[in-house]
Amino acid sequence: MSSNQNKTTSGKDGTTSIVLRKLSAFHIGGDTVGIEGQRQTTLQTVPGLPPRKSDPNGHYQIGQMYAQHYALQSPRSRVPVLFWHGGGMTGAAWGDTPDGRPGWHDYFMRHGFDTCVSDAVERGRASWAPYPLIIPEPPEHRTMEQAWSIFRFGPIGEFRKVFDGQQFPVDAMDQLAKQFVARWTCNTQRSINAYIALLNKFGRSIIVAHSEGARYAQQIATCVPHLIEAIVLIEPAGAPDVVKSDVSNAACVPHLVIWGDYIDHSPLWQNYRQQSSIWLDAIQKQGGRVDTLDLVAHGVTGNSHLVMMDRNSDDIADHVLQWLTKTVHV
Amino acid sequence: MSSNQNKTTSGKDGTTSIVLRKLSAFHIGGDTVGIEGQRQTTLQTVPGLPPRKSDPNGHYQIGQMYAQHYALQSPRSRVPVLFWHGGGMTGAAWGDTPDGRPGWHDYFMRHGFDTCVSDAVERGRASWAPYPLIIPEPPEHRTMEQAWSIFRFGPIGEFRKVFDGQQFPVDAMDQLAKQFVARWTCNTQRSINAYIALLNKFGRSIIVAHSEGARYAQQIATCVPHLIEAIVLIEPAGAPDVVKSDVSNAACVPHLVIWGDYIDHSPLWQNYRQQSSIWLDAIQKQGGRVDTLDLVAHGVTGNSHLVMMDRNSDDIADHVLQWLTKTVHV
Repeated sequence: MSSNQNKTTSGKDGTTSIVLRKLSAFHIGGDTVGIEGQRQTTLQTVPGLPPRKSDPNGHYQIGQMYAQHYALQSPRSRVPVLFWHGGGMTGAAWGDTPDGRPGWHDYFMRHGFDTCVSDAVERGRASWAPYPLIIPEPPEHRTMEQAWSIFRFGPIGEFRKVFDGQQFPVDAMDQLAKQFVARWTCNTQRSINAYIALLNKFGRSIIVAHSEGARYAQQIATCVPHLIEAIVLIEPAGAPDVVKSDVSNAACVPHLVIWGDYIDHSPLWQNYRQQSSIWLDAIQKQGGRVDTLDLVAHGVTGNSHLVMMDRNSDDIADHVLQWLTKTVHV
Repeated sequence: MSSNQNKTTSGKDGTTSIVLRKLSAFHIGGDTVGIEGQRQTTLQTVPGLPPRKSDPNGHYQIGQMYAQHYALQSPRSRVPVLFWHGGGMTGAAWGDTPDGRPGWHDYFMRHGFDTCVSDAVERGRASWAPYPLIIPEPPEHRTMEQAWSIFRFGPIGEFRKVFDGQQFPVDAMDQLAKQFVARWTCNTQRSINAYIALLNKFGRSIIVAHSEGARYAQQIATCVPHLIEAIVLIEPAGAPDVVKSDVSNAACVPHLVIWGDYIDHSPLWQNYRQQSSIWLDAIQKQGGRVDTLDLVAHGVTGNSHLVMMDRNSDDIADHVLQWLTKTVHV
């Protein structure tokens, strides 16, 4: 892919079309679970009419994920980009940014990539199984206060106080919070199974993954490395255990890891980054390719955990594109 | 729109491109709710690292909906189609059918309409508020057995027994069930508020609405008729009360209502249809235009409640397109 081609399709202002051969959307993965012995109730669904029977006994589909596949008429890349969101988020994370700019999904489509935007198991259109009937524990719903600290918009415990030079558009905090969905921590294996099913459907792909999604991507690279052209890890929330997982399997997959700013203000992110570094170092020791885009070391300051929504999100996408271009010859 | 134009863009096999000027995706509506006095816990989000704090006290965004807007480079229709899903479903209902054919979203894009596919409040990417912390009651999760009866695939209480001549692709029942999401019945006003916000953003639009979404659409036509070019009601699950709602307001909006087969086997659907008929008759008495596409009376048998997923879904879409063409001169 030449950089000239990139320029001509970079239509942030909407002047350049996106020509799709096909848009498909589907659920993939999961299985059937039966429930019995539960009390039947009634439910008033339509005002003015008698309530109808509501019987929780029966069969449910659980553990599936949801995906939208945008296939370009003339993709420049021979492999698609699969976008994997973080914990408590959905595929909406790759759409318009909370302050209304085109997001990374738009960027990569306009730069010639077939794309797949998905909702992981239990999130968004993927649906979630009844709890405690099937999922044993309740979910966590993210408060805006928790997000403010974990996403490193400002100092821990000081909601609405903003770090100097912050690149996240904090005026759009309320809009961001509309994206938050409930998350469980006991469905990891189901999520990984569904992502592997997705990769099997698509064949060889580039994965662009954020946070929890990036942790899953690293794990999945040990399972199906032959299906992964490259992985872009945006602020991975940890990594697999080097003892329990097969590092050598993942070493044939080129990794790019991106880190934002203010990590020294967050013990949580220091831990996540350290765990991730142990994993990525192990891959390098196996001869694998791991490139790190430490934005601050690169002279780019102020990025939050939500790099793909920050004000300079297009600049970071440019870095990713350049890395893909030189590393995997898309 | 001439029927010739329709033919040339009808590319079910994917040979005709969809040329988008812009794809945007966003949340709209809703407000902020604060919670206090709840117990703080910890949550093990990353294996191998210490658990982190999980504090439910703070602020949440609730009552928003999610929308994807597909703007064509050269739309033939001067107004977009907004697709509104039914109860316990999401915008996924308008994508590929459970047996893998292109759905109505594809059909209307390829026939020259800008489209909007959305998830109503509490469904899919719109997210749902914590219960019982904010939503007071638990949701209903639809079993496959309940769906079988309510969607009229076969006789009540006889799961997997199929009505003769059934048009729904029942071999894809498991795939359909992957679309089901939890639903509450206490969020109606929030849903209606968010839909009105959506209409205010888009301006004058055609609404294509299914089941519960069709009940909402009828209610909303009494609130913002000036924003609605036409409403297509696919098997509305009831209708507003003629005494409590202002029928005359809705009478300036042309209505098309579509009914499938086997309603005589379902007391539930007889009730829904009767309530809907009372409403639509009242609109006609006010001088409004209401057209009914009773498929069986039209010689088309075997349609389920999920008309837009049935094997003859494209034929029904053709009927809708013809009605729109002659009624509102799209």
